[in-house]
Amino acid sequence: MASALAGLEDCIAPQLAAVEKMFHDELGSKLPCVNVLVRHVSRFRGKMLRPTLLLLAGKACGELNDAHVILATVVEMVHMATLVHDDVLDEAELRRKGATINHLRGNEAAVLLGDYLISHSYHLCSSLESQYASRTIAATTNEICEGELLQIDNRDNLNLDEETYLQIIGRKTAVLCAACCSLGAKFAGASDATCRKLHTFGQAIGSAFQIQDDILDILGDVAEVGKTLGIDIRKGKMTLPMIHFLAHAPREHRLLLRSLLEGRDADKVERIVNLILPSDSVAYARQRARALVDEARMAIAPLPQTPAKKVLELMADFVISRPL
Amino acid sequence: MASALAGLEDCIAPQLAAVEKMFHDELGSKLPCVNVLVRHVSRFRGKMLRPTLLLLAGKACGELNDAHVILATVVEMVHMATLVHDDVLDEAELRRKGATINHLRGNEAAVLLGDYLISHSYHLCSSLESQYASRTIAATTNEICEGELLQIDNRDNLNLDEETYLQIIGRKTAVLCAACCSLGAKFAGASDATCRKLHTFGQAIGSAFQIQDDILDILGDVAEVGKTLGIDIRKGKMTLPMIHFLAHAPREHRLLLRSLLEGRDADKVERIVNLILPSDSVAYARQRARALVDEARMAIAPLPQTPAKKVLELMADFVISRPL
Repeated sequence: MASALAGLEDCIAPQLAAVEKMFHDELGSKLPCVNVLVRHVSRFRGKMLRPTLLLLAGKACGELNDAHVILATVVEMVHMATLVHDDVLDEAELRRKGATINHLRGNEAAVLLGDYLISHSYHLCSSLESQYASRTIAATTNEICEGELLQIDNRDNLNLDEETYLQIIGRKTAVLCAACCSLGAKFAGASDATCRKLHTFGQAIGSAFQIQDDILDILGDVAEVGKTLGIDIRKGKMTLPMIHFLAHAPREHRLLLRSLLEGRDADKVERIVNLILPSDSVAYARQRARALVDEARMAIAPLPQTPAKKVLELMADFVISRPL
Repeated sequence: MASALAGLEDCIAPQLAAVEKMFHDELGSKLPCVNVLVRHVSRFRGKMLRPTLLLLAGKACGELNDAHVILATVVEMVHMATLVHDDVLDEAELRRKGATINHLRGNEAAVLLGDYLISHSYHLCSSLESQYASRTIAATTNEICEGELLQIDNRDNLNLDEETYLQIIGRKTAVLCAACCSLGAKFAGASDATCRKLHTFGQAIGSAFQIQDDILDILGDVAEVGKTLGIDIRKGKMTLPMIHFLAHAPREHRLLLRSLLEGRDADKVERIVNLILPSDSVAYARQRARALVDEARMAIAPLPQTPAKKVLELMADFVISRPL
């Protein structure tokens, strides 16, 4: 979660370190060629947002135990698998300021590496005594796949409405955050009602996170966010600012955006950004993300005041303020 | 298993029908766009070899129950997932006489559909009470991924030795057949020793099956096997006849095969086939496959004489005689 939250995760620091170690130990292979590829993934590892959520949710509801470390590692593997397969899907050439797997080694290696990660995540999860977590994780990945399929089905669909958009990001991104939070609570012995609260928290900040991603795709620059920008636009992926713009901007502006989106101009991305920026569509997206963060904070308001709860609240705010 | 074995699987017919139904029911989605894609997979469904193996192994060791139907559906989903992702890997344009998913809908849909299948297989498996099957299935998919990664690491490696080749096909293909047979036995209440025998049976016929595939890649024709031929050659994938040829053919022949494999001649595949056919390398591959089938039959010899055991023995023979 970068420097903005540095020090705030002290309450889960030993478990986060254990997750880091387990992640590498579990992915190790007897085959040198597999280890070379796995090492490459490790190089562009992310912010550990999902393990952090799972551990904080557990801590906010009770005591952490070995199952939390296992599950936090599982969700990080699931997330890495989706990132690696997204790189095949997105043809992104930059991610996290490093070359992507598919760029370096071809689509084949990217597909297989994603499969390797997801397989190991299920295998690790199956080491727990009960099937509860395995069921939750597999139900979650079912939904993630549906979200991704719904997304590509709506590629280049300039008539995508906000409701379907929210369904896409809900499944594609938010459902894993929701599973992290509810699993963390469940394995700390929380009641079903409390697990549902944490589930709502995760679902809401996950959606807010994705909306912020949409905004950064339009506002950011490569140096800052470390990803190829305008990817969504180039790939015909409708983002919330664009959906709002196409529904609410003056008619002439809407028609212009449509023709730019349908065209193949070399400066397409730049022109689209320049068209949307002065409108209130980015502000609208920000406001939707803010409302989700408020919903998230409300959901966990009844929890006892603990350092872990405090950090969850700060993370909710951070999701929509992050430049990085 | 086509007409050659027609009628022989009567002893598992009700369960096979239940697998067929469960396969479709489990993959159904609330999202129409997902169902369209899933229906497409169903159209080029295969021989149900793996469910058949699992059910016959169970029947040969005891009585079949609901868990067998669930697990037989799980292994079919795992197999379909590997087929769909292989289509991304292989760029095959024909498979089972139908267009492949990636050809029709792009690599993105193929990657996601494979992910959808594998996720649903784990989810279905997690509906069983114990974690035993989940652990076995995930350990199996771990090995399949390693086998595929080892294979692409050895692409265009003209010095690939037979031992590494056997390791590749053992992981990539045979390990799932072995898991089918041992899970079938385990859930019929077989002893650990009997499960190990069935495991050996599955591993051996799985490897024999792959060697037969290698042979068909050189011998068959599109009309007969329903797949693009010479794919292995075109993709730099070394097959057993080629490995044997490069190690044992007269020096001039070996040098010619090397230069053909390294070159880009338009009639490359045809020339390679014409070079290998008159040698004894295809016969050698046949003999290796035959030895594996004998090993498989030996492994299950101690089982009581039942119709299921008889069909397993016939399947072992069929694996290396199939033209289709």
